[in-house]
Amino acid sequence: MQCDELVEHGASVGESPAAIIKKCKYTIGMLSDPAAALSVVFDKDGVLEQIGPGKGYIDMSTVDAETSSKISEAITSKGGYFLEAPVSGSKKPAEDGQLVILAAGEKALYEEVLPAFDVLGKKSFFLGPVGNGAKMKLVVNMVMGSVMNAFSEGLVLADKSGLNSQTLLDVLDLGAIANPMFKLKGPSMIQSSYSPAFPLKHQQKDMRLALALGDENAVPMPVAAAANEAFKKARSMGLGDLDFSAVHETVKGSKSSG
Amino acid sequence: MQCDELVEHGASVGESPAAIIKKCKYTIGMLSDPAAALSVVFDKDGVLEQIGPGKGYIDMSTVDAETSSKISEAITSKGGYFLEAPVSGSKKPAEDGQLVILAAGEKALYEEVLPAFDVLGKKSFFLGPVGNGAKMKLVVNMVMGSVMNAFSEGLVLADKSGLNSQTLLDVLDLGAIANPMFKLKGPSMIQSSYSPAFPLKHQQKDMRLALALGDENAVPMPVAAAANEAFKKARSMGLGDLDFSAVHETVKGSKSSG
Amino acid sequence: MQCDELVEHGASVGESPAAIIKKCKYTIGMLSDPAAALSVVFDKDGVLEQIGPGKGYIDMSTVDAETSSKISEAITSKGGYFLEAPVSGSKKPAEDGQLVILAAGEKALYEEVLPAFDVLGKKSFFLGPVGNGAKMKLVVNMVMGSVMNAFSEGLVLADKSGLNSQTLLDVLDLGAIANPMFKLKGPSMIQSSYSPAFPLKHQQKDMRLALALGDENAVPMPVAAAANEAFKKARSMGLGDLDFSAVHETVKGSKSSG
Amino acid sequence: MQCDELVEHGASVGESPAAIIKKCKYTIGMLSDPAAALSVVFDKDGVLEQIGPGKGYIDMSTVDAETSSKISEAITSKGGYFLEAPVSGSKKPAEDGQLVILAAGEKALYEEVLPAFDVLGKKSFFLGPVGNGAKMKLVVNMVMGSVMNAFSEGLVLADKSGLNSQTLLDVLDLGAIANPMFKLKGPSMIQSSYSPAFPLKHQQKDMRLALALGDENAVPMPVAAAANEAFKKARSMGLGDLDFSAVHETVKGSKSSG
Repeated sequence: MQCDELVEHGASVGESPAAIIKKCKYTIGMLSDPAAALSVVFDKDGVLEQIGPGKGYIDMSTVDAETSSKISEAITSKGGYFLEAPVSGSKKPAEDGQLVILAAGEKALYEEVLPAFDVLGKKSFFLGPVGNGAKMKLVVNMVMGSVMNAFSEGLVLADKSGLNSQTLLDVLDLGAIANPMFKLKGPSMIQSSYSPAFPLKHQQKDMRLALALGDENAVPMPVAAAANEAFKKARSMGLGDLDFSAVHETVKGSKSSG
Repeated sequence: MQCDELVEHGASVGESPAAIIKKCKYTIGMLSDPAAALSVVFDKDGVLEQIGPGKGYIDMSTVDAETSSKISEAITSKGGYFLEAPVSGSKKPAEDGQLVILAAGEKALYEEVLPAFDVLGKKSFFLGPVGNGAKMKLVVNMVMGSVMNAFSEGLVLADKSGLNSQTLLDVLDLGAIANPMFKLKGPSMIQSSYSPAFPLKHQQKDMRLALALGDENAVPMPVAAAANEAFKKARSMGLGDLDFSAVHETVKGSKSSG
Repeated sequence: MQCDELVEHGASVGESPAAIIKKCKYTIGMLSDPAAALSVVFDKDGVLEQIGPGKGYIDMSTVDAETSSKISEAITSKGGYFLEAPVSGSKKPAEDGQLVILAAGEKALYEEVLPAFDVLGKKSFFLGPVGNGAKMKLVVNMVMGSVMNAFSEGLVLADKSGLNSQTLLDVLDLGAIANPMFKLKGPSMIQSSYSPAFPLKHQQKDMRLALALGDENAVPMPVAAAANEAFKKARSMGLGDLDFSAVHETVKGSKSSG
Repeated sequence: MQCDELVEHGASVGESPAAIIKKCKYTIGMLSDPAAALSVVFDKDGVLEQIGPGKGYIDMSTVDAETSSKISEAITSKGGYFLEAPVSGSKKPAEDGQLVILAAGEKALYEEVLPAFDVLGKKSFFLGPVGNGAKMKLVVNMVMGSVMNAFSEGLVLADKSGLNSQTLLDVLDLGAIANPMFKLKGPSMIQSSYSPAFPLKHQQKDMRLALALGDENAVPMPVAAAANEAFKKARSMGLGDLDFSAVHETVKGSKSSG
């Protein structure tokens, strides 16, 4: 069982979310998606049955603002404290304890669990009311998606213009926009290798949600919109389950001219 | 006179480009634009009058591929060696000796002047035939221009969505796309301050030329094209002489809704 | 009262939706928005209270597919027939009886009310299951929104290039893409006059919904996405309540160069 | 020989451009491209050898503004009159005498040859100084290229959303943006049939030139830029020699999801 190793290190296993809440002052949940995040709270033997004054629930799942608000309202109406705390960073940063924690909700709770956050991630932020954690994550992922497309276009342009792609990576890495993603993804993109760290369909979903957020607030985002369409094009080519860097395939043409 | 300080440090001043070429084995030129670069070579008392076998001319100006080719052909037809060597990086990297040199042309000449390049910049690359230096610079600047737009859209989206812009900078700086440009330009963009390090009209010109290069090679670049239109929009707003980060003004709206 | 003139021509006035449904075999509703469309059906004395076998309700409001489906399910679960029948065309076509009716739902009902549709509009279509009427309208409006932007860009390009805008209208009107919208909107756009026939914020909402539909089905729509961002830019400039042709203001720059 | 039929109808054949100019007060040329247009004027036995006061040369070729200016200067410096007169419309309108003539240059010459234009096309315009004919044609073709993309996106969105493509054509044909191009190209696009009336690579070249014209004049054209990238994508797929409606293939995905 997945928990065995943790138990050996001194952890104890709860029978249900409710049982854990009962035993602990603060409980952290990290679920795979909004449905799971809601189920752990609202279902039988869920968080809600035992949450109350003096107790806090921290949801580190990546969910939309509505899901977060729903959970927040239910918990606070029972007198409990709530914090949403999605993380920025994918597989590798998680393994290295290098995640960034984007917390929002009850500030007092944030301050109490900060020591735990300092172990889980390299840095945490308190962003204000519930929903702001989810929003910050969308903004960051939107910028990242556009930057990925800019990078891909540069790689193809270099290659088709007779320049060496690896040299472009070297030059970029010495300049004003040198960044870890170019370093990490560049070499595999050159080899058309897209083993999924962050699936393209999830990246595209985040771009869509960020564009929707921009729509609500009348923010024109033509570059993000163009990047989003490229990700959609990639989905239409059946690349949704590959890494988001597979958007590269939409830029590379099948023939060289016309 | 501008040269006095250098002369005090031991430099000598030539009367004309021809006089310098006559005296030196290798001469480096760094002119302000294509017209100046051509004039120094082709005008009376210019480089061409004294260039010949055993002598090399290195042009570090940022010029288009055609200008470079024209100079190259003239010099090699006289038996001289030529190298184009534009640099990547703007004001600050230049002052700090942190430029990246993008050399192309005569490889033997490149190898001979490498020690000088190592003093002038932090790193130099030899990119193949004349024209490739200019092309590499365009590709890099194109990616940078798109990234700037992605960044600007993120900053405005954060702000209009009730997030703190400075916090977004902090979060970005800890993540996969952390880069020097975000760090350098972010704080001033938040304050709508765009004192020109790299003028917007030059950035837009480079995007146009990169798009033209992509056109020749049938490379679709929808994100760069969207970014280019944003820079054009900024020009239409009279912002061409400000820093290229002034494209931020095209994303920020005058009213909050409608 | 608004109804007086109709009553003089022989119409009778019902006390409530329920009263009308009771009296009539088929009832047509045309409400201002989804909330009103739902209220007329679900509220006290609403359509649902009297609908049943042998009776039909036709909703000609412009609503989203979900609203339509909700109404459809409620009515059919009572044994009634339902047809959504939004119209394509704005103010002028409505006054001239030149609307196009986009019906979807119960085919038998469609066939029975066709004679009425033939009076109300110039042409009607039966499009299949409930929701397809709303979808068709979105597709049409999306194409229209992109075409409006293409037109606006052409008008500004002509003007800034020293061509006469009115002549462009004349040339376009003789060519392959001559269409009523260019003829109707062109002259007022040249004069920066945007009195609202179809408000920009509604056009932008339809583009957003069409893009969302494309997202669901992985259809890349880069031109519609660019057009949508231009409409959002217009909203950010406070132009949302003007005619959708006011997107023209986003293309016209404040100064001529930079 | 191509001319035989015309000769039977009373035409006479000239030995060379110079011979024709010598014989005629006004001469009309219609050549395939800029190179041919220049050759007919500047080569041995060309137009220039006989042009002079009292004689006019009308070039109906589609050429760029520079080519036109070059020819114009040469002819006017000999005392001759010049008119550029490219046509708007492709194969079918040409066969039907339905071309639109976009004349620019010497107004007096325009007025003298108007009767001939009235036979050759359905309508002609005088647009001012030489170059304006070429520019007007670019503006018109740019709008057309964007409209084609908007149309293609609509067709694919309808199809992928479960609507009938032919019905979309019917609905569009009754609405505000009904136009001959939708009617002509729609049915063949639905069948993925793109037999070239106007080759995609020529359309893309015109979009590029129109965007360059917009660049000169600081006109932001995000929708045209997105459309241009779609045409470039089509070129990268090897579709440059098909009809410009083949841009449709860039919107249609190979798989339905991801």
